[in-house]
Amino acid sequence: MIFQQQLRIPGPTPIPERVLRAASRPMIDHRGPEFAELLADVTAGAKRVFQTSNDLLVLTSSGTGGLESAVANLISPGDEVVAAVCGNFGERFAGIAAAYGARVVRLAAEWGEPVEPADLAEVLDAHPQASLVLLTHNETSTGVTNRLADLARVARNAGRVVAVDGVSSVSSMAIEVDRLGIDVAVSASQKGWMAPPGIAFVTIGERAWEMSERARAPRYYFDWRLAMKQAEGGSTPWTPAIGVMYAVQEGIRVMEEEGLENVFRRHRRLADATAAGLSALGFHLFAAEGHRSATVTSAVPVPDLDVGAYRRLLRTRYGVVIGGGQGKMAGKLVRVGHLGAVAGGDVVQVLWAMERALEDLDVAPADGRAMAAAAQHLTEEEAATAAP
Amino acid sequence: MIFQQQLRIPGPTPIPERVLRAASRPMIDHRGPEFAELLADVTAGAKRVFQTSNDLLVLTSSGTGGLESAVANLISPGDEVVAAVCGNFGERFAGIAAAYGARVVRLAAEWGEPVEPADLAEVLDAHPQASLVLLTHNETSTGVTNRLADLARVARNAGRVVAVDGVSSVSSMAIEVDRLGIDVAVSASQKGWMAPPGIAFVTIGERAWEMSERARAPRYYFDWRLAMKQAEGGSTPWTPAIGVMYAVQEGIRVMEEEGLENVFRRHRRLADATAAGLSALGFHLFAAEGHRSATVTSAVPVPDLDVGAYRRLLRTRYGVVIGGGQGKMAGKLVRVGHLGAVAGGDVVQVLWAMERALEDLDVAPADGRAMAAAAQHLTEEEAATAAP
Repeated sequence: MIFQQQLRIPGPTPIPERVLRAASRPMIDHRGPEFAELLADVTAGAKRVFQTSNDLLVLTSSGTGGLESAVANLISPGDEVVAAVCGNFGERFAGIAAAYGARVVRLAAEWGEPVEPADLAEVLDAHPQASLVLLTHNETSTGVTNRLADLARVARNAGRVVAVDGVSSVSSMAIEVDRLGIDVAVSASQKGWMAPPGIAFVTIGERAWEMSERARAPRYYFDWRLAMKQAEGGSTPWTPAIGVMYAVQEGIRVMEEEGLENVFRRHRRLADATAAGLSALGFHLFAAEGHRSATVTSAVPVPDLDVGAYRRLLRTRYGVVIGGGQGKMAGKLVRVGHLGAVAGGDVVQVLWAMERALEDLDVAPADGRAMAAAAQHLTEEEAATAAP
Repeated sequence: MIFQQQLRIPGPTPIPERVLRAASRPMIDHRGPEFAELLADVTAGAKRVFQTSNDLLVLTSSGTGGLESAVANLISPGDEVVAAVCGNFGERFAGIAAAYGARVVRLAAEWGEPVEPADLAEVLDAHPQASLVLLTHNETSTGVTNRLADLARVARNAGRVVAVDGVSSVSSMAIEVDRLGIDVAVSASQKGWMAPPGIAFVTIGERAWEMSERARAPRYYFDWRLAMKQAEGGSTPWTPAIGVMYAVQEGIRVMEEEGLENVFRRHRRLADATAAGLSALGFHLFAAEGHRSATVTSAVPVPDLDVGAYRRLLRTRYGVVIGGGQGKMAGKLVRVGHLGAVAGGDVVQVLWAMERALEDLDVAPADGRAMAAAAQHLTEEEAATAAP
């Protein structure tokens, strides 16, 4: 019996009941004092999550809109831009820059592998004109987390401005925008923030503001300067997604009650448990060792498994929704999301269903091996993470 | 005592409880079958509201994002564009075109007046190169509704493509996209649709699709072709505001239970009642006779009234939030919204508070004259419009 679908894709993520209730508050005037208070609170909270004292804008869009705002505010047509790409979302960031007329220099890593800082250094040496570097912190399509600190250092040492896609990492992993000197970082509400989709966050440092003064790409809806000017007066230039902002406010409260360090540790633990479970099923972990994401675990299933049929069975019989492969890995991967309001028991539940569905398909018996392997990584601390 | 704020600005609008509950449903996979069903249902319902069989896209943005999508998909830098402007939102549509590099020919009417079809014909004659015309159906900043049928006919007869800002009109007034031959029409969820902000709707006719093939302005997040391709597969290119879409779905149900013709009639009646009430207060109706909006009524208050203090008093003492003037009319107007989930009793309530607040400020006694004038326009039909 399926009473409630278990959403285990890397976003949208499950939403705690108190956050859903916040999302359904009555509307307010987005030019009034109640909204000014909401915006100030969300902005301050999001800055704590990004670990930054840079400016932070709250945009009404998906994460992709946040990425587009970075491109539209930082480049002029014809500019050379270096994009480090190791999967579908890196391609997307590069694609936005290309759509805005940038000459994009792609530094591509194999899918499943991270971008190597030494390779980035080499590309930057070869392209001294490229003043902007686009990085992906957590590549959601492959489950790879790049060594952001090292990549950012290389780019900064070479005097370039760094824009980071942190859509599926920020709020689940430490990003430390200020300590790493990241000029622009982007995330979105439907990931670890535990809120519905509709809001993107963008942090903007001083060097990015300077670059934006010279940039000539067209922008209006995503114009940072308009948004900053309005934010200083306690509002947004266009009507914001007020309900989603209430949800984000409550989601940040839930995170801070757990403690951000605990949030980050929980995600790491859930990732390790999931990886152990998938390995026990005979699946091959796709992301390179040492670069496995804390928010999504990708794996190549046992040979000859029809991934589409497997995912459908999981959804219809067990109410468990997991991701498949994207782009060139379509039909070849499973991706299990464990970000946001996800606890140890949820990982065990997914693995139980994944074992059972393999048995249903006559691939392997459901003998509890995946659950047992995962349980090794789930400690008694888990009991403390559930918040009413 | 204020138990519940009365939101009487022209958006965001009050949201019925059943719509708020829909907005707080658990999340679903935006690539799964449940979402495909939601998207199909919202798209079909919105088409009925727009009275069109053209394509309709559901974008995650405010209405301004929907307007920007029209500009970004229809023009190339350097194109000549005619913008008919009679207030702040007409200026915005023109401003977006300018930001994207269009040479904008402004046909400006006095604030409070509509755009005259004969003037549009003249401007189009003088600018045969301008292939795109930007129109505002309902100018929210002045409370003026333009004669859209006549303006659209002039533009069509001159062989131009017509894009209409219907943000604050569609779902509260008939727009009849197909009958008027409107190529592009835009609206947004936080208006008559009775949902929270976060979703924009854009209808796209065949001539607009053809124009978009030639257009060279950069676009990615707002790319119509990407969105249409994904919509055909039951999804959106970027993670959509799922919660707001559930709310829109429920809002359309509420509207269709009332009956769209009844919805339109109710808005007209509320506008007439509000206008009568404001006149009885000695306020001067700002929008020209015969062009008064069905969704927002604007008026110049009695001389020497401090509009800011008056609005603050209404908000803090009576819980009634009304709009003020925008742009060059800042501080000089009151604007009372009566769109979406608003019934006759709500208009009387606002007028009661407006009378009382004038008395509080020693301007005039609260003798019930505004309520009485409004009541003349409120018939027994009102009783039938409230839906649980």
